[in-house]
Amino acid sequence: MKKVVLLGGGNVAYHLAKKLSQSTEYQLIQIYNRSPLSPEFDTIPVEKTSLMEALLPADIYILSVKDQAIAPLSSSLPFKGRLVVHTSGSVPMKDLSDRQRRGVCYPLQSFSKEQEIDFSKIPFCLETEEATDFDLLEGLAKEFSPKCYAIDSLQRQYLHVAAVFLNNFANHMWYLSQQLCSNQQIPFELLQPLLEETCRKGLQHNFFEGQTGPAKRGDRAVIEKHLQLLQGIEKDIYKDISTSILTTYGQ
Amino acid sequence: MKKVVLLGGGNVAYHLAKKLSQSTEYQLIQIYNRSPLSPEFDTIPVEKTSLMEALLPADIYILSVKDQAIAPLSSSLPFKGRLVVHTSGSVPMKDLSDRQRRGVCYPLQSFSKEQEIDFSKIPFCLETEEATDFDLLEGLAKEFSPKCYAIDSLQRQYLHVAAVFLNNFANHMWYLSQQLCSNQQIPFELLQPLLEETCRKGLQHNFFEGQTGPAKRGDRAVIEKHLQLLQGIEKDIYKDISTSILTTYGQ
Repeated sequence: MKKVVLLGGGNVAYHLAKKLSQSTEYQLIQIYNRSPLSPEFDTIPVEKTSLMEALLPADIYILSVKDQAIAPLSSSLPFKGRLVVHTSGSVPMKDLSDRQRRGVCYPLQSFSKEQEIDFSKIPFCLETEEATDFDLLEGLAKEFSPKCYAIDSLQRQYLHVAAVFLNNFANHMWYLSQQLCSNQQIPFELLQPLLEETCRKGLQHNFFEGQTGPAKRGDRAVIEKHLQLLQGIEKDIYKDISTSILTTYGQ
Repeated sequence: MKKVVLLGGGNVAYHLAKKLSQSTEYQLIQIYNRSPLSPEFDTIPVEKTSLMEALLPADIYILSVKDQAIAPLSSSLPFKGRLVVHTSGSVPMKDLSDRQRRGVCYPLQSFSKEQEIDFSKIPFCLETEEATDFDLLEGLAKEFSPKCYAIDSLQRQYLHVAAVFLNNFANHMWYLSQQLCSNQQIPFELLQPLLEETCRKGLQHNFFEGQTGPAKRGDRAVIEKHLQLLQGIEKDIYKDISTSILTTYGQ
């Protein structure tokens, strides 16, 4: 049975630890966190420590901490030559200390506190510096999800940007839409069927053929009218995205 | 029984005509189109004409034509003082000829050719110049959908902008995300669970609280890294939307 130590006390760390504590192949033997762990961790029956020097020997160390903490934490580990992986979408594998065998185990999902996480549907993006470590890491990742992909650091960076466009930016478009309505005393429920249709079509990944609207049609008169109704950053956003759509469809 | 004449031969015109031909309260008596109607209209048992002078007397004339055609078509109608409405989201009611009693009957949805339209879920935005015409128009609109709203021309313009952000721009974010993946040989299926989660959360309208990502966190280091991976209009879009999110959350 492979031994795993988890470092971190955040939301992702909690869910990884909870799932891992049920594994029969990989044994979570310790959770390290600099500060006291939140009460939810009490339900996970495993040794906890806040002392770096108390870290136990293990096959894999998972660093599930804030991006900025990954490099310093990996540098302060009191051993060398062990497999140390982080779980971040945006930090290159080589930001980890080169005193260790390095890797990345990035679950690609937007985690929210309130919601139960079903890891089995979440793709895990895996990378190891040494090819011989890949199976070990993949075995661990398969404890969480059957969907494991070999993704290198550059791909992972682009994947993270792609995720920002997909999730964060689409959500912000919806927020701006909602704000436009509320500023004009328009009930947002009017847009609910359109939002449903947007999502229904979007989930088919038919983004190119599915595009509609003034910019798709090359309808510059409507674009101009809309720009006159907007100001500030919303206007810039409208202008840029319309330009991008116009370009995409050769208008 | 109220009499209705429909002018137009496009997709929306077809679906309006089809639905209206089943009504027992409003009788579709004629469809006018300048050029021959497409074969699908053959299934609608009603008189068709391409002659302006052959237009029959009716209680309501629905102009379901391209935005640019609305004003000239309404000006060329060979009668005056009748209720003439258009179905556009972006054209002001007053673009219709003032020789008629003017109105707007705008079904707020992104129609696609291939798909059957269920009007009953689509909100209709109604406006009439004369208050006494509102009931007549609302009666007609209720033949299509129970969801009828009084929306004036300025509100409708903002609603149209809001719909562009909601549907067109969100879809384009997804397209850009897909392109980023395909340019880096990353299977887009990796983002499917995130897309599902995006839509699931989005349909709850929790856009403000539901926002995540580097800009929401004020993580300028990640934003900078992402900008280095992008160029051209994608970079401008990333910059603008991040600025907007940073501002929204006071970062």
